Amino acid sequence: MANRVHKRQLTIEWGHCDPAGIVFNSRFFEYFDWCAWEMFEAVLGVPRAELFATYDIMGIPLVDARARFLLPVRFGDRLEVASEVSEFRRSSFDMTHRMSVAGELSVEGRETRVWATRDKVDPSRIRATRVPDAVIDRFRAS
Amino acid sequence: MANRVHKRQLTIEWGHCDPAGIVFNSRFFEYFDWCAWEMFEAVLGVPRAELFATYDIMGIPLVDARARFLLPVRFGDRLEVASEVSEFRRSSFDMTHRMSVAGELSVEGRETRVWATRDKVDPSRIRATRVPDAVIDRFRAS
Amino acid sequence: MANRVHKRQLTIEWGHCDPAGIVFNSRFFEYFDWCAWEMFEAVLGVPRAELFATYDIMGIPLVDARARFLLPVRFGDRLEVASEVSEFRRSSFDMTHRMSVAGELSVEGRETRVWATRDKVDPSRIRATRVPDAVIDRFRAS
Amino acid sequence: MANRVHKRQLTIEWGHCDPAGIVFNSRFFEYFDWCAWEMFEAVLGVPRAELFATYDIMGIPLVDARARFLLPVRFGDRLEVASEVSEFRRSSFDMTHRMSVAGELSVEGRETRVWATRDKVDPSRIRATRVPDAVIDRFRAS
Repeated sequence: MANRVHKRQLTIEWGHCDPAGIVFNSRFFEYFDWCAWEMFEAVLGVPRAELFATYDIMGIPLVDARARFLLPVRFGDRLEVASEVSEFRRSSFDMTHRMSVAGELSVEGRETRVWATRDKVDPSRIRATRVPDAVIDRFRAS
Repeated sequence: MANRVHKRQLTIEWGHCDPAGIVFNSRFFEYFDWCAWEMFEAVLGVPRAELFATYDIMGIPLVDARARFLLPVRFGDRLEVASEVSEFRRSSFDMTHRMSVAGELSVEGRETRVWATRDKVDPSRIRATRVPDAVIDRFRAS
Repeated sequence: MANRVHKRQLTIEWGHCDPAGIVFNSRFFEYFDWCAWEMFEAVLGVPRAELFATYDIMGIPLVDARARFLLPVRFGDRLEVASEVSEFRRSSFDMTHRMSVAGELSVEGRETRVWATRDKVDPSRIRATRVPDAVIDRFRAS
Repeated sequence: MANRVHKRQLTIEWGHCDPAGIVFNSRFFEYFDWCAWEMFEAVLGVPRAELFATYDIMGIPLVDARARFLLPVRFGDRLEVASEVSEFRRSSFDMTHRMSVAGELSVEGRETRVWATRDKVDPSRIRATRVPDAVIDRFRAS
């Protein structure tokens, strides 16, 4: 069964580029996060700020993030992004974000996130918890 | 004669908000910059990355930036932005960016930028130069 | 009576500079915030993360921020910063941050912040509250 | 033969943390970059802005970046960072950055960077070039 793919575009901003004229690497990790929340909002049909209350979570924090930079990306470039959840595990999941400029794959991102709640006893602690089946089902292409 | 107003929307991202749950102030100055370039691109009809060659400039750097934060803005909020060049002077200009959430003015930004070239003798020096009349004309509403 | 002045240095990072080779403007507002918290920590003698509990505040959010960019600042430049609270009012205060490179004033920042608590009835609302005299006294030079 | 290890501290800033109260992931990739340049400056004994002219490079751009987030890091935390070049290849190298708070490893970063020049014919192209032996030697602990 295939995964749903969420597509969006984004335009490279001036302040995202470094003196070499290319996007500074940390900005791509910001983009991955933008795409992750937008995909959750779109796929679950819940405004992103309401995901916390709807699912009783404190967020979807990262435990691993990775990017491969295949081609330089520059100011004004239009990125086509294809995001998907490539795998759900019990209480964590992997997302991939493939970014292309003019049809050429330029950056590949991969994030591992946890479905997280606050510990009932010590709210400063973050606990991974089971991803609901209803959430997982939504990320599968029909 | 009225100024052209450029409108856009933007959605507040998770990584733009601080532990108080509101947008961290420096992010608004990033948004102002996004809106400035997008307006120049739209009004002049030139892709942003080609503005340098088209007008023989090195950029539109800031000499002054200011923001008033009237209402807190939060994750997921949809900002409506109205940008305009409020005044052109010989080699500099003022932009304003009014940002509203649900119809309420939340942040007001003002930037003073220069129309800048690189010094012919010492390219590390930035020089303000005359804004072309053809540029100024475009920013007036017809 | 003179104000205490908090001095620090900071080095301009690669990812803080734009394709023109100068610091992207929003980064200065990040630096102002770094300097503000560091000054409060130093002057009040309380680790920054404990300021909230010590003074029963939710933060010192901005209602106004401004910067004047006098000279370009570049990758690797060593900034000397002098910060002070230039005025305390009942529940807000102004900070200034003067940034020099090699003895030349390059950027001047000014922030207006409020001494803020969460509303008891509606914790999502931020309320300005009276700055304690004991705090104000500490910011005066002896 | 052991690698030189470059150590530094850094304090977590307010604007680096998200509404969950922990450092937003992309900020760590900024920190890795800060540590990389600082290490090169320290180990090679050349101010960072002069590395380009000294070695005739256009930079040390990333082709791969990765972080593992082992423990949450919060506002005001003091990070101890230990950076090293874990491997040099012909024209690329791997850096690792181990970040600890109060003695506990919290974040592990790994970057693959290239020793890059601009193409003589087409300066918009970035080319990996051979890392000088004199550079490699410096990164070995004596």
